Amino acid sequence: MTTTPSVAPLTDQDHVHLARAVRLAAQNVLDKGGPFGAVVVTADGQAFDGVNRVTANNDPTAHAEVTAIRNACSQLGTFDLSGATLYSSCEPCPMCLASALWARIAVVRFAADRHDAAAAGFDDAVFYDYFDTPAELRSMPVLHTEPEGISRKAPFEQWSSFAQRIEY
Amino acid sequence: MTTTPSVAPLTDQDHVHLARAVRLAAQNVLDKGGPFGAVVVTADGQAFDGVNRVTANNDPTAHAEVTAIRNACSQLGTFDLSGATLYSSCEPCPMCLASALWARIAVVRFAADRHDAAAAGFDDAVFYDYFDTPAELRSMPVLHTEPEGISRKAPFEQWSSFAQRIEY
Repeated sequence: MTTTPSVAPLTDQDHVHLARAVRLAAQNVLDKGGPFGAVVVTADGQAFDGVNRVTANNDPTAHAEVTAIRNACSQLGTFDLSGATLYSSCEPCPMCLASALWARIAVVRFAADRHDAAAAGFDDAVFYDYFDTPAELRSMPVLHTEPEGISRKAPFEQWSSFAQRIEY
Repeated sequence: MTTTPSVAPLTDQDHVHLARAVRLAAQNVLDKGGPFGAVVVTADGQAFDGVNRVTANNDPTAHAEVTAIRNACSQLGTFDLSGATLYSSCEPCPMCLASALWARIAVVRFAADRHDAAAAGFDDAVFYDYFDTPAELRSMPVLHTEPEGISRKAPFEQWSSFAQRIEY
């Protein structure tokens, strides 16, 4: 159990970045993408855009938030965005929230909410329900299976014996 | 609320693919990646590999499962893997589970579990805890913020008026 850190009051810069995410989302429709945009802003103020490219790139993980995180990390040469803020045109789905956690995003701000999205035909309810449902009742079964011919711990044993590993 | 569909009994092919995911994971350590591997197998038996490239590619979303899903979709030219099975060397984190849901993966099978991973220094507990914690108490605040100068629904209005949209 952790507690939510206090969040700095809204600034003019927050509004600039959030409005940009919403404008990117609207523009992306004309670019044959989904109606979603995002901006990652690092602690020192560098901004990186992302838009939804699921259908355009045949990548079900290419939500705007994930794309913005990938762009920021790629261009900054890091996998750690500690202290960054993620602005999104719409409430992030669990995939995007978990991606933001892995990237160590500090705060997420979004404009439209999940109900606005559902009214437009983008209903993420199944995703929220999935994580709210006990594991044994979930729609996509996730099953432990003991591998044959190799120990399930073999990769971790390889890892612990590999001197040049990069911890993360 | 949905119910878990019945899962076909384990087959020899399941064991072949799962053992491959574990071997990919061990090999990936020597290739300067994390100790994680995955294989997506489509309903008609085509297999696509993925390995963890978080540090190698500076992409915090490049978990083995996500990479395998991206590879399968890219090579098949689709964003929909309905009926596919995802084999992973290790229990998928919430980001990977949600990515699999978006890709419409039918079943996930994993070898090592979250406790094996934690013992090797890969502790995803904060991620599972995140989704088990009420929104107002979460470690990464996710805040609705009304945009200024543009309606939060503008992207959806653009979408509904755009005749060439690709629904998904």
